[in-house]
Amino acid sequence: MTSLKLRRSPEKILLPRGFSFSALAAGIKASGRLDLALVEVADGATAAALFTSNRVVAAPLEVGRTGLAATGGRLRAVIVNSGNANCATGRAGISACERVCREASTILGVPAAEVFPSSTGIIGVRLPDDKIRAKLPELIAARSESLRGARDFSRAIMTTDTRPKIASERIQIQSRAVSQRRGASNEVTLLGIAKGAGMIHPQFATMLVYIFTDLAAPARDLQGLLRDACDTSLNCISIDGDTSTNDTALLLASGKSRVTVGDAGVRKRVSLALHNVCQSLAEQIVSDGEGVLHVIRLHVTGARNRDEASMVARTIAHSLLVKTAWAGADPNWGRILAAVGRCGVAIDPARVSIFIAGQKVCRGGVACAFDQRRAHRALARPECDVRVELGRGRESIAFLTTDLTAEYVRINADYST
Amino acid sequence: MTSLKLRRSPEKILLPRGFSFSALAAGIKASGRLDLALVEVADGATAAALFTSNRVVAAPLEVGRTGLAATGGRLRAVIVNSGNANCATGRAGISACERVCREASTILGVPAAEVFPSSTGIIGVRLPDDKIRAKLPELIAARSESLRGARDFSRAIMTTDTRPKIASERIQIQSRAVSQRRGASNEVTLLGIAKGAGMIHPQFATMLVYIFTDLAAPARDLQGLLRDACDTSLNCISIDGDTSTNDTALLLASGKSRVTVGDAGVRKRVSLALHNVCQSLAEQIVSDGEGVLHVIRLHVTGARNRDEASMVARTIAHSLLVKTAWAGADPNWGRILAAVGRCGVAIDPARVSIFIAGQKVCRGGVACAFDQRRAHRALARPECDVRVELGRGRESIAFLTTDLTAEYVRINADYST
Repeated sequence: MTSLKLRRSPEKILLPRGFSFSALAAGIKASGRLDLALVEVADGATAAALFTSNRVVAAPLEVGRTGLAATGGRLRAVIVNSGNANCATGRAGISACERVCREASTILGVPAAEVFPSSTGIIGVRLPDDKIRAKLPELIAARSESLRGARDFSRAIMTTDTRPKIASERIQIQSRAVSQRRGASNEVTLLGIAKGAGMIHPQFATMLVYIFTDLAAPARDLQGLLRDACDTSLNCISIDGDTSTNDTALLLASGKSRVTVGDAGVRKRVSLALHNVCQSLAEQIVSDGEGVLHVIRLHVTGARNRDEASMVARTIAHSLLVKTAWAGADPNWGRILAAVGRCGVAIDPARVSIFIAGQKVCRGGVACAFDQRRAHRALARPECDVRVELGRGRESIAFLTTDLTAEYVRINADYST
Repeated sequence: MTSLKLRRSPEKILLPRGFSFSALAAGIKASGRLDLALVEVADGATAAALFTSNRVVAAPLEVGRTGLAATGGRLRAVIVNSGNANCATGRAGISACERVCREASTILGVPAAEVFPSSTGIIGVRLPDDKIRAKLPELIAARSESLRGARDFSRAIMTTDTRPKIASERIQIQSRAVSQRRGASNEVTLLGIAKGAGMIHPQFATMLVYIFTDLAAPARDLQGLLRDACDTSLNCISIDGDTSTNDTALLLASGKSRVTVGDAGVRKRVSLALHNVCQSLAEQIVSDGEGVLHVIRLHVTGARNRDEASMVARTIAHSLLVKTAWAGADPNWGRILAAVGRCGVAIDPARVSIFIAGQKVCRGGVACAFDQRRAHRALARPECDVRVELGRGRESIAFLTTDLTAEYVRINADYST
């Protein structure tokens, strides 16, 4: 884990070829803000997706998964609404979602299975699909391959987010890896757009994340690339420990670059670029966490394997006492040690050491002399590194998490999501 | 689970025979409040104990466990300090604890292993055992078999608790079950005293809990009685999901009643009285939880076995989104359903129903029409019943938990425990 500053949404956004965006306000959010968004791939795209591991699964995830299976991973469009999760809405929720996809597919002239739906917002409330369907002609007509379209899309999918989350990467490819067909290019662009500020504790899936690229790759290759990238980025964050019912990560490839991933060197570079996009989005999600004042880069080292490193990290990231100590910039390592002790891994406290911003504060499970004021100052900054060494092996995990503030409580006690 | 009001500390406290109490301020707490407490059993007691399942274990638990093993469960005195947990203090912490026990044992004229130590407070700070040892003669001289002594004891073990936790029960025993020895009586009294307001999520142990009785029973019988009583009371509560490093439940029997538990009928009645004491203390701990405004009596029914009922209950009780909704008296059952979905039990959402104060708010995993205002009013009360029916079997659990308020965050961001 580097100690560099967390990545923010960049000034400069790179657009992959082949994608059009639009967004508008359909009246789902009471605030009247943007709440309906479209991305369309005129010539179609190959696609891969990851979904929540929660057994309670929202209607759009079921419809989207079925559609991807039916088309073998081909997509023409994605329609996202915010303000309503369409979850715990039963058979009626599935039907409402299908009506939206069918209506969009009729306008676009493609099979309904090629329209992928997403929803985010309150659970258990009927989706007002009539409002959405009434706006579809306008939404589809307004699409454009513009930066402004992509920015509107990123804002329309927000709920309690205070800012949009966007990341992009461009890589140059040596010409021998580029298909010789007409229009072949030697660069591949990836654009990622995400939302999420609460109910963030992804497990084998993430909050709503869309990644667009002009790479040319079959769906099965995309699936491997997406899973690898998410495992070390979006699956290593937690704001509040609650895994959402609507988590979705979707990777769409338009093929417009004509660059393929058959070549191992190209695949490696694409994989790295994809990881960078996912990691940037992960960092943006955590630093925009509900009520968050402090982001902690948690590094668990000396584990026997990655699973136990993950258990330790998730237990620390989930401890109310640790998170509230961080809110107060309190270098209270005893709470961290207590969380490690109850996480289910057979740790030996006498081998555990804890470091705050590089300073050792606990050695062999016991207090050691340290500069309290320096540790407090480091924790008072917006970002701080905390390392827990288990002394059991050589595996490690880098995990991003947050403090827990009174503002988080206020947001979630006052607002139904 | 009944919907009766939670039990509070009773007006009338019953004292079992054979126990003397005292307490004073030894200067461990900066506030100058009572922080050192003693209970002494002049003729000795048999004893059983349960300890935390956290792998990080405080020094007094190690010393106390060793002492009980060495004496085969015989005790003469218990010495408790608050303001310092003597945890993560290494070999020096063990030595400090042993010095306290040795000094007390010298004054009392018993082996050091018959003095049982307890500590609660901040983790990772050296125990000022010199301050404690200097006060031992005064503490021991002041002991008395009085109600006032027991009340002082209950206050001296408090940390962030706002009130002491005491419960007592008395049962009449038919004369045939009473030993014919001189001084035999036909009543048994149980007195329980506990502390705890945060770091409360006991697993196979509890926060600091002391139960005194004049029952005559060998240590191995006491162990079974204590475990059975705690499993359904003190092990079924959670305030913040953090399992303490110092959790201890100690049951002491002075034998002064001459009533034994050889008779199955007597054992059953003693067991019930012990459960009542533990359940009352559990309710007092939860309702004094840090920053708690609402206590929730969570009832998970229709589980295949008790373990999965417990997993569902603990996940709901641990969800920040559920707890903050409760803080706002928000009948947001979608968050409860989402927590059930991620708890690791293979539930089928279509079989899950949720009830708030007896009103069905979710049927078969789907929204159902309900009186929102009535549900809000019920959740706005200090105590409310929430039931989750899983539709998988016949097992259930009753679990007490709390909301999560901004006040909890303030207490734990400002105060090092």
